[in-house]
Amino acid sequence: MNIPNCPVGVFDSGIGGLTVVKELQKFLPNENIVYFGDTARLPYGSKSKRLVTKYSLENTIFLNSKNVKIVVIACNTASAASADFLKQFIKIPVIGVIEAGALLAAKYSKNKKVGVIGTKSTVKSRAYSKYINKLDPTIKVYEQSTPLLVHIVEENWINKNITKSILKEYIDPLIKLGIDTLILGCTHYPLLANSIKECTKSITLVDSSTAIATIVQNTLEGKKILSNRKTKGYTHIYLSDLTPEISIWMNDFLGENFIGKIKKYNSQLL
Amino acid sequence: MNIPNCPVGVFDSGIGGLTVVKELQKFLPNENIVYFGDTARLPYGSKSKRLVTKYSLENTIFLNSKNVKIVVIACNTASAASADFLKQFIKIPVIGVIEAGALLAAKYSKNKKVGVIGTKSTVKSRAYSKYINKLDPTIKVYEQSTPLLVHIVEENWINKNITKSILKEYIDPLIKLGIDTLILGCTHYPLLANSIKECTKSITLVDSSTAIATIVQNTLEGKKILSNRKTKGYTHIYLSDLTPEISIWMNDFLGENFIGKIKKYNSQLL
Repeated sequence: MNIPNCPVGVFDSGIGGLTVVKELQKFLPNENIVYFGDTARLPYGSKSKRLVTKYSLENTIFLNSKNVKIVVIACNTASAASADFLKQFIKIPVIGVIEAGALLAAKYSKNKKVGVIGTKSTVKSRAYSKYINKLDPTIKVYEQSTPLLVHIVEENWINKNITKSILKEYIDPLIKLGIDTLILGCTHYPLLANSIKECTKSITLVDSSTAIATIVQNTLEGKKILSNRKTKGYTHIYLSDLTPEISIWMNDFLGENFIGKIKKYNSQLL
Repeated sequence: MNIPNCPVGVFDSGIGGLTVVKELQKFLPNENIVYFGDTARLPYGSKSKRLVTKYSLENTIFLNSKNVKIVVIACNTASAASADFLKQFIKIPVIGVIEAGALLAAKYSKNKKVGVIGTKSTVKSRAYSKYINKLDPTIKVYEQSTPLLVHIVEENWINKNITKSILKEYIDPLIKLGIDTLILGCTHYPLLANSIKECTKSITLVDSSTAIATIVQNTLEGKKILSNRKTKGYTHIYLSDLTPEISIWMNDFLGENFIGKIKKYNSQLL
């Protein structure tokens, strides 16, 4: 097999990880990408570590069947629960979105006080704290679980006044602790960035998906498996469940210029 | 097999359906009960009808392996998606929570205007409208999807002021339509009943779980398979995933007087 021309694999619990796909398309336009969104079993955030690890392994087995050369875990919860296990267990390199976010936050924070908002499971794992303190043990990391936010996004209540009240309820305690940097520790949260900015004002927001493409590039370069393709790569998107709402969201999000193909249903996995 | 002494099977996407179990224990104390909560794949409300039907069938196969004599679908979404199919397809009787709620609402409404709040999938199916209009075609049924409410309950924001604002956002349009009866079309919503009452005032609230026990009793009597046991029955609870949060919730909810046994993990199914 010609490994450099194998695709980059990305998985997420749903479709939020397509933000990572967009970044990859921008940074590495010649790479093929295979995306798997586990819409049939989402969300992962309230489920046990054991179960999320099982799902992550199954998603990885699926991507492996598409001959991917690297696995990107675009889901924060899956990254927190299973990145260490997958890195140890499988041969192909594994990149988790959490390590990317941790890297950026450690770089941006000046007063060494970083806040994290994420799902219950991500926060409970303290994965952001661990990765950040591996880079700089003097940084104080404050983590706050914000489980309603995913559903606020899915309900499309993004610009409602009530959403600002919910955000204040969650974020004010972090602001009181004096953070100067806030990690949006779930792929859905960047969609709330404008409302979050109104609550956080001068605090720097970190969107992990923007950092991950650089790490993927460095890893592929380091292993000498960057694609040598001269043309644009394809993107194949697989979902374990497809509702009309998801189709509409995807068409809006991917836009007219999307070069790729959406596979409508993948049920073999389940 | 001695069918009368076989257990009553109940399934739900999660643990909300334990409200139905409590009602069954009260009405039919001598029956054994086997409950399956699909906590590994919840919630069902945003998933496709096809997938929810697949999950419901798998849950029923699991209950069947425990020799249940009747299957109660305690989940509104699963009931809307799959009750008709299961009734046609399997030999043992199937009772869906929606038919129970529809029966009560048709009985209570005087001005023949009934509101329903439920998940996207339940509302989209219009299953409540169909069942109510089968009983009385002159009743007008107004359905409103309220997807955030499940998560408000799971976040334990039950008595927050913000919750009242969210409820008003959802329920005010139904009140303006002149309903005199409101079906709480999801097993989580009765936990918000106090806050909902503040928004709805004189409107009669219908909790489907309270009606289902009577229907189960009538069905078992009709088929002459009521238990002839003289002692209290057992309750076995199976969950496809168990987190510490769920354990705490279950202990609080089931209370000290719970006669039963919680099976910690059932992964064979998945």
